[in-house]
Amino acid sequence: MADKPQNSAGLRGQSAGSTALCTVGKTGSGLTYRGFDIKELAEKAKFEEVAYLLLKGKLPNQAELDNYITKLKGLRGLPDALKTVLEQIPKDAHPMDVMRTGTSMLGNLETEESFDQQQDVSDRLLAVLPSIICYWYRFSHDGVRIDTETDDDSVGGHFLHMLRDKPASELHARVMNVSLILYAEHEFNASTFTARVCASTLSDMHSCVTGAIGSLRGPLHGGANEAAMAMIENWASPEEAEREMLGMLERKEKVMGFGHAIYRESDPRNAIIKEWSQKLAEDVGDSVLYPVSVRCEEVMWREKKLFCNADFFHASAYHFMDIPTKLFTPIFVMSRLTGWAAHVFEQRANNRIIRPSADYVGPEKSEWVPIEARG
Amino acid sequence: MADKPQNSAGLRGQSAGSTALCTVGKTGSGLTYRGFDIKELAEKAKFEEVAYLLLKGKLPNQAELDNYITKLKGLRGLPDALKTVLEQIPKDAHPMDVMRTGTSMLGNLETEESFDQQQDVSDRLLAVLPSIICYWYRFSHDGVRIDTETDDDSVGGHFLHMLRDKPASELHARVMNVSLILYAEHEFNASTFTARVCASTLSDMHSCVTGAIGSLRGPLHGGANEAAMAMIENWASPEEAEREMLGMLERKEKVMGFGHAIYRESDPRNAIIKEWSQKLAEDVGDSVLYPVSVRCEEVMWREKKLFCNADFFHASAYHFMDIPTKLFTPIFVMSRLTGWAAHVFEQRANNRIIRPSADYVGPEKSEWVPIEARG
Repeated sequence: MADKPQNSAGLRGQSAGSTALCTVGKTGSGLTYRGFDIKELAEKAKFEEVAYLLLKGKLPNQAELDNYITKLKGLRGLPDALKTVLEQIPKDAHPMDVMRTGTSMLGNLETEESFDQQQDVSDRLLAVLPSIICYWYRFSHDGVRIDTETDDDSVGGHFLHMLRDKPASELHARVMNVSLILYAEHEFNASTFTARVCASTLSDMHSCVTGAIGSLRGPLHGGANEAAMAMIENWASPEEAEREMLGMLERKEKVMGFGHAIYRESDPRNAIIKEWSQKLAEDVGDSVLYPVSVRCEEVMWREKKLFCNADFFHASAYHFMDIPTKLFTPIFVMSRLTGWAAHVFEQRANNRIIRPSADYVGPEKSEWVPIEARG
Repeated sequence: MADKPQNSAGLRGQSAGSTALCTVGKTGSGLTYRGFDIKELAEKAKFEEVAYLLLKGKLPNQAELDNYITKLKGLRGLPDALKTVLEQIPKDAHPMDVMRTGTSMLGNLETEESFDQQQDVSDRLLAVLPSIICYWYRFSHDGVRIDTETDDDSVGGHFLHMLRDKPASELHARVMNVSLILYAEHEFNASTFTARVCASTLSDMHSCVTGAIGSLRGPLHGGANEAAMAMIENWASPEEAEREMLGMLERKEKVMGFGHAIYRESDPRNAIIKEWSQKLAEDVGDSVLYPVSVRCEEVMWREKKLFCNADFFHASAYHFMDIPTKLFTPIFVMSRLTGWAAHVFEQRANNRIIRPSADYVGPEKSEWVPIEARG
């Protein structure tokens, strides 16, 4: 069989192309979208403004943003054929499989026939992905066929509204806005790279996004916030959390939500979502989950010098907003769609098919043996 | 915007991992699967035997092959929910979108819950992909709901049977067998690499295959045989073909089905499928398409020193078997599933997440301007 991975495995540190979209960890901890610092964007921007920045290349002025928000609001409806497909998917399906299938199905109904349509196809996906997941979730779990064409201004508000049949509070809409900004883009991560490999064959946008969703589904990529939630919800106090975590570390179990492949000092998204998680804890009167989360952060830093990444305090934040844990990674999709699509645009504008080589470790020459003579 | 592509663009010549499955062009023109020469496999093996070789690591003995064929025959049925989904897809959809959506939907119904299931999930996909495409094709085009559980021994025979409501002739089943062997595996091509990137996040098999189908859909990857067909079917004689091809070359138009990213001297698959295309031409009494194809080959070699790749004579071969042109690339999927799945197994057995870097070509630092002050 193959050798054990070398240090060069996984293409780590090798350039696979160029991008003007994002820097990750240039100063050890920074994150920028088209040169804008993530802290500034999370504080001052709307997610739709950041989507515009990523997809159209600049920050919109007021009229452009208003038009864009109006456009997205008009693109939330699901075709009947897609509704029928979503109704065939069982309640116990993996929600990322639902996102992947819904996106793929939409490609049959609204095929990108030419790259001239790439902006419109991306805007449609940005608007409709929350509808896809919520329509399936509510139908399979609650037996209702929801109307996905709400009047909420924001993508995050739209999502929460469909989930609960009532408009989101100002605080919740604000946190969703921040969360969607934080997850929007992250350079050549595995799902984005999947989208670029697909785009490099000059395939269509739905194929690129479908492939990216499949990669984000993997437990080494998306899903860390779900895993973090599954861990912390077991613990009733900071003391129990500390005791259990120390046990996990001693048993060398993987603790999700800490450390990062690229960042060395800290994940700049953590401080931002942590602050919002604290506000939500106050809002709901939590005295367990947030203190437990803070203790986890302290223990991991003290014991392993590992910092919380973007996912860790997202777990408690989403939980305080009553979002079912299984929908955490689909929210990631609703956000990262913007980064994926913008990378597809870049790949198409300056393309060469991505076709690496491999180190051959198999037999040099195999001799054919007639089937009756085989052991 | 980004610089023009460099020679290192597309990761060409850079190793992205190791494989024991395949060598491409090691002697300038060779192709081996697990060390076996493609010529020998195409002459002596059944496609199911090659699938076994790729997926299970060795050639089967007679009992193993018999059992495997029996197993695959038992896995051709479509769940009702998947039939309903396929019935929602319009007649004018891209057949690769149908393959992608059918595979993704199956992932909701028969989710790979653990890597222990990877062999069974792959066998199921190998058996059911022809059912997916034919069920949709016959329903959307002919208005019939076909029974996909035929008693044909071979994957290729099963496919042709469903397409035409009658068992394939011996010659046709033989050509399908050869064709499926030729397309089964080709190292780190873009669709296989897509599957490996997805697998590197430890995602499930349906996600990996769904992503790979999306990449194969691209006109720079799969689809060259369809494009070749669309070209040669316009020409009524070798003389017209030569005249028109010379015109295309003068206008610097891309001629599909010639040359290759890796092979330098010839594509070893061409001589094999060309011979079968000739036999089929004799079988149907063709006096146009095959001579036209031969003339195209002569002209491209004489004028450009470009050789036919695997795709060019596949166009006429499939056409002589009355296969609709739009189903050519789905046949590629039915075959390449074996290579994709085998690569996923390899990636999982020796994994590091595939996460390359990028050259940043965007703004160093962007200054936030309040929205009311933007131009």
